[in-house]
Amino acid sequence: MAEETPTAGEFVQSLDRGLAVIRAFGPQRPLLTLSEVSREAGISRASARRFLHTLVELGYVGTDGRAFFLRPRLLDLGFAYLSGLGLPEIAQPHLRELSERTGESTSVAILDGDDIVYVARVATYRIISAAIGVGTRLPAFATSMGRTLLAFLPPAEREAFLERVELRPLTDFTITTRVRLRKALEEIAAQGWSFVDQELEEGLRSFAAPIRDASGAVTAAVNVSTPVRRGGVDDTRERVVPPLLEAARRIEADLQRAGTRIR
Amino acid sequence: MAEETPTAGEFVQSLDRGLAVIRAFGPQRPLLTLSEVSREAGISRASARRFLHTLVELGYVGTDGRAFFLRPRLLDLGFAYLSGLGLPEIAQPHLRELSERTGESTSVAILDGDDIVYVARVATYRIISAAIGVGTRLPAFATSMGRTLLAFLPPAEREAFLERVELRPLTDFTITTRVRLRKALEEIAAQGWSFVDQELEEGLRSFAAPIRDASGAVTAAVNVSTPVRRGGVDDTRERVVPPLLEAARRIEADLQRAGTRIR
Repeated sequence: MAEETPTAGEFVQSLDRGLAVIRAFGPQRPLLTLSEVSREAGISRASARRFLHTLVELGYVGTDGRAFFLRPRLLDLGFAYLSGLGLPEIAQPHLRELSERTGESTSVAILDGDDIVYVARVATYRIISAAIGVGTRLPAFATSMGRTLLAFLPPAEREAFLERVELRPLTDFTITTRVRLRKALEEIAAQGWSFVDQELEEGLRSFAAPIRDASGAVTAAVNVSTPVRRGGVDDTRERVVPPLLEAARRIEADLQRAGTRIR
Repeated sequence: MAEETPTAGEFVQSLDRGLAVIRAFGPQRPLLTLSEVSREAGISRASARRFLHTLVELGYVGTDGRAFFLRPRLLDLGFAYLSGLGLPEIAQPHLRELSERTGESTSVAILDGDDIVYVARVATYRIISAAIGVGTRLPAFATSMGRTLLAFLPPAEREAFLERVELRPLTDFTITTRVRLRKALEEIAAQGWSFVDQELEEGLRSFAAPIRDASGAVTAAVNVSTPVRRGGVDDTRERVVPPLLEAARRIEADLQRAGTRIR
């Protein structure tokens, strides 16, 4: 693993491997045997045994004697992040109001690398094959919140993203050229909100607006997602965008009042 | 740390310490210096530096050069747990409907040791000084969901809990004797739902019902919490309990249809 350890003397490999053991579990793999953990985490059986034993001792992993599974204590780690962020608790009542006004699912996400990560959500129905919730990651380039966050990045960061991003077609509608994506981001920056029409999943439309934190930078976005069958684009936009922008302004006002900066 | 390592040869201390570095951050401590991490995690500055460096390399921690902060990648760890659990996505639409029908905040929690841990929530307003969200831990004995989960434990486990639990008074109304708590649990098991009146926080009432997973065991609970100012106990009970029990039955039916077991 030398390529992962540029300053090898300082890097604690066993922490890296222990976290890889946790990440070996997931929605399709809630129960894993020792061999499966070893394979998924890419470590020896002997290592997997030591890490699993340690995680069981610490209460992060349980076992029925044969298979292992994650335990709720793991939420403490994500909760340490979310509760320090300050954003979810500020956004939640505004999301709920926005969901009530529009009858649609609403979310707040932030940018992490080239993904968006959901930090708050009010779901009205299952819109997408994979369940979306706090902690869900989606590719920024194909989502309304991601495009909004990208549109308001400092120009050099935005260009660096455009140069490195792999534009995979997720549906027949996904923008897959840098030229078109750059133009879309410019339009979003100018109009102050984004619209993504079935580029992430067929049958799903989404509108998003930027949220500026107490530093003045756009560090979060709020969206409304709606099934195509609910109506035409123009009608939906007229119905959804005004309350969306109002929710964004209210979340901003609360963040600024609280002095909250999203890092 | 000998007392924590009954099988010391197997225990990976650096994983334990690395996780302690993550837990050093929190709602009151979103930004920590190296010295503060060292102090909060109970490790040397040299160790803290190595663990922070590793976590920065792995993308779990960020730094502005002086202070350190957690990054959204941490949510991946909690998300690995939640998404494998299957419960939050099944419960969410039912919680939302229950919130709409009652106008109140609703939640689903599971038992972890002597605490309940929230795994899904629809909030209508801030009910409590500390924000409650997915991942929040509260003492089981003083909450409606905790009492429900305790009431349906196997008798030996319930007795073991009653023997070891420390019954701290959280308000003037908190039950603080084992005799009264045991009686309350017996009543809950008999009537099939629980009511906690301002025992966790003054001004807050909560009703909870058990949820049986596909194994047939009560492994989760759903609640409705309501401010005292919304009305008298009898009126509130009549208004809240029938839709609460209906939501519990619907979540159960979906869990059983999906074959979901909560471990």
